[in-house]
Amino acid sequence: MNKTVLGISLGLALLGQPAPAGEREAIEAYVSQHQGRIFSELVQLLSIPNVAADRPNIRRNAAHLRGMLERRGLVAEILETAGNPLVYGEKKIAGAARTILFYIHYDGQPVDPPRWKQSSPFVPVLRSARLEEGGKEMPIDSSLSRFQPEWRIYARSASDDKSPIVALCAALDALKSGGREPSSNIRVVLDGEEEAGSPSLTGAIERYRERFQADVMLILDGPMHPSGRPTLNFGARGSAVLELTVYGPKFPLHSGHYGNWVPNPAMRLAQLLASMKDDAGRVVVPGFYDGIPKLKPEEIRIQEGVPDDLEELKRFFGIAQPDAVGKNLQEALQYPSLNIRGLRSAYVGDDARTIIPSDATAAIDIRLVKETPSEQIIEKVVAHIRKQGYHIVESEPDDQIRLKHSKIMRISRRKPTEAYRTEMNLPISQAITKALERTWGTEPVRIRTSGGTIPISQFIRVLGFPAISVPMVNFDNNQHSENENLRLGHLWKGIVTMASLLTMETK
Amino acid sequence: MNKTVLGISLGLALLGQPAPAGEREAIEAYVSQHQGRIFSELVQLLSIPNVAADRPNIRRNAAHLRGMLERRGLVAEILETAGNPLVYGEKKIAGAARTILFYIHYDGQPVDPPRWKQSSPFVPVLRSARLEEGGKEMPIDSSLSRFQPEWRIYARSASDDKSPIVALCAALDALKSGGREPSSNIRVVLDGEEEAGSPSLTGAIERYRERFQADVMLILDGPMHPSGRPTLNFGARGSAVLELTVYGPKFPLHSGHYGNWVPNPAMRLAQLLASMKDDAGRVVVPGFYDGIPKLKPEEIRIQEGVPDDLEELKRFFGIAQPDAVGKNLQEALQYPSLNIRGLRSAYVGDDARTIIPSDATAAIDIRLVKETPSEQIIEKVVAHIRKQGYHIVESEPDDQIRLKHSKIMRISRRKPTEAYRTEMNLPISQAITKALERTWGTEPVRIRTSGGTIPISQFIRVLGFPAISVPMVNFDNNQHSENENLRLGHLWKGIVTMASLLTMETK
Repeated sequence: MNKTVLGISLGLALLGQPAPAGEREAIEAYVSQHQGRIFSELVQLLSIPNVAADRPNIRRNAAHLRGMLERRGLVAEILETAGNPLVYGEKKIAGAARTILFYIHYDGQPVDPPRWKQSSPFVPVLRSARLEEGGKEMPIDSSLSRFQPEWRIYARSASDDKSPIVALCAALDALKSGGREPSSNIRVVLDGEEEAGSPSLTGAIERYRERFQADVMLILDGPMHPSGRPTLNFGARGSAVLELTVYGPKFPLHSGHYGNWVPNPAMRLAQLLASMKDDAGRVVVPGFYDGIPKLKPEEIRIQEGVPDDLEELKRFFGIAQPDAVGKNLQEALQYPSLNIRGLRSAYVGDDARTIIPSDATAAIDIRLVKETPSEQIIEKVVAHIRKQGYHIVESEPDDQIRLKHSKIMRISRRKPTEAYRTEMNLPISQAITKALERTWGTEPVRIRTSGGTIPISQFIRVLGFPAISVPMVNFDNNQHSENENLRLGHLWKGIVTMASLLTMETK
Repeated sequence: MNKTVLGISLGLALLGQPAPAGEREAIEAYVSQHQGRIFSELVQLLSIPNVAADRPNIRRNAAHLRGMLERRGLVAEILETAGNPLVYGEKKIAGAARTILFYIHYDGQPVDPPRWKQSSPFVPVLRSARLEEGGKEMPIDSSLSRFQPEWRIYARSASDDKSPIVALCAALDALKSGGREPSSNIRVVLDGEEEAGSPSLTGAIERYRERFQADVMLILDGPMHPSGRPTLNFGARGSAVLELTVYGPKFPLHSGHYGNWVPNPAMRLAQLLASMKDDAGRVVVPGFYDGIPKLKPEEIRIQEGVPDDLEELKRFFGIAQPDAVGKNLQEALQYPSLNIRGLRSAYVGDDARTIIPSDATAAIDIRLVKETPSEQIIEKVVAHIRKQGYHIVESEPDDQIRLKHSKIMRISRRKPTEAYRTEMNLPISQAITKALERTWGTEPVRIRTSGGTIPISQFIRVLGFPAISVPMVNFDNNQHSENENLRLGHLWKGIVTMASLLTMETK
């Protein structure tokens, strides 16, 4: 065992109890010997531009990915949809009693190349550390065979979400090299427009539903917990957005000539918004939190075990006092939220004019939990608005409506995404938890509901399987922003985690 | 008497009792005979661009105006200031016991030429009626000598505020032509940067204070009451602007990951704003309305005599129910107001992102009345904000402040303009009221406090004279906007009103 492998092993051992003999070490040894090849495969994949709107390059990605799956012995195909194609692969294992469907996406967020500290987001750059911490660029060439875990690769989708594809493939290689077979049938679906909201997924699920049948969906996306501990997300909040516009006079009026007489729509909007929350940030719309169950003791124990450093977060964000919806961050995320994501009425700053604005708009997002489907919660918000005296319209009010109603609000909606949550005590949930614990010698961080939104609730609704997210990339990966990156140590560990899941017990 | 003059006379007679024999008819006859020359003088003046920032053209205006005053026998000069020059003229009348200082401004609002329905805002256009009512363009040539009262001249400053200068000059001509002298000494000050906030006026008042001594200041600016009746404004509200910024996290945060835990500054701002007014638009900041006196019966009579057509205004503005600060518009304007003139936090519409914004800003304007000087009322508003738990800063909060205070607000101010009000029962107020009543045979509309702001409170503070505004232009003049215009019938009547004031009784 050379020094690098030792270094990694020691690092991992620090996380908790040593893993059972043999399995983890075998995968780690494979990874250590093949770092150069695995890295090259990642560089190759990252070199194909993958913004969802770039159809020709998306096709190149799909063809390339199909080849990658085929080289691992999967039966792979490109599934056409109304938009970008899905890449699908399947490997049947003789005698396997379980089928895992891996969901990963191969498209990336749009890019703004001048903001990147490299020639292109699609010409990967290797750095000796995080850019912000003085990481130096190092040449990428085929002679590279040993990589420090602190090194990072910078490129769009380095972490979101191409590296999990490479990790899954490398894990299959590692098992094969050790003469081992996965314990489950494997199905893989690679989404080509997740960052564009997966508009074609619903149709594709219906069309290809037979291919997507599985006992569990494993979502490989998102960052690990900031503590760096193995992480499992058992749910994600959904999201519904509303836009609320209050109407004032038909055109902006001189605030001197008419102030005190013509009602101000910005003040009306402020009063309405203020009626929705108390001073401690709790929503006071009647029924908003209805149906949220009390956690069981075991759930409380797991939740309180999430190692959030709240004092550090407060310092980092510059806030003195969090809202009081939950006792802590994890508890707060078990409830739906109501957030003003934008406010607009006339002008502020140098553009401000002494007018009564003609309208005022608030953009709202409501994060949903499993117990609060979008339709029900929006209905409660709308009922609350009506109770404040508003006449609700869906387009600009005409003169007749204006003269009849003193409070008029236009409400616009977009298609919501529902929340999902998988029980942590399902057999499959326990099997996955145990597999990670066994491999890493430490209880994984188990997130009951992660705050953000993942557009897979439609899979669950149609196909009925549980879904669990297994994030593997570093927290500080600049996801969705410029200079996205992957810490290589996380990639190597991710391969071990994948191998662990591919070979977990089947009962 | 020709038909046109008869037409005008009949029109005026309809307003109330016929005027006493002779005086008004003499001026009207003069105007009728010299319409062509008066119109030409106005066209010439409007052809000199007069945006305050256009220094060379402002100088051309000043020289031209000085010449206009000199031709009326005034001793005229150009008074240099820190900014644009004032044009000053003086005419001493043997034996006159009273001095009137006329304040008019010769600069105009900035222009956006492509939005005008003519080649340039400084190439005047004559139309047969209001543009919006099908007014047709008519050639302007020197052969024009008779003008219908409905005709309009379109140009920047046609009504705001060059036509009052031409009307005052024409009234002096008319008196001279009839062998009459003004009954008061005349002083005229023409401001060259009123539309830019008169930044140099305070210094100029100190510097030239001897020239500005007078018994009364007559402000010739603004539109007549929409009813078209002769109008006197005895006061104007002042104006103080504030900008309120509430701070949230140091940078925008993902609303999924942190919504329910990191406080939202837009919600905080909404709650603060909502705490300032009740549902009927009344300010509930403690002490906001303190010191406003009850009106005396005579003041109530005059106020209730203002012929506002409130039902028509509601229809025009598209509002069902006015705020409840006063029983009606005029009463509402006797109180200070608090108006949100703009709101801004992150993004709405297509640009909206699911974030917790890092800050939220409200631009506020407070209209002042004589009993509520800016400093006192701002102090009350700030005290109210403190009472809601805010720590107030004057610049971006640093990390230490952020971690110490859960509610942080930055308050920015600009230089306020104070209100003024002249008592309607002062001898000079009564003399002016009587002069208009005598000329037009009807009681003028007397506005105790007009809602807008006129930057002359500094004159009053330094020089101590009463100020009364005598507007003469049409209400629908598109002041401050594109297609500014003057209805010629209002110009002809304005000349008569000026002659009436120049010759009013001196006791």
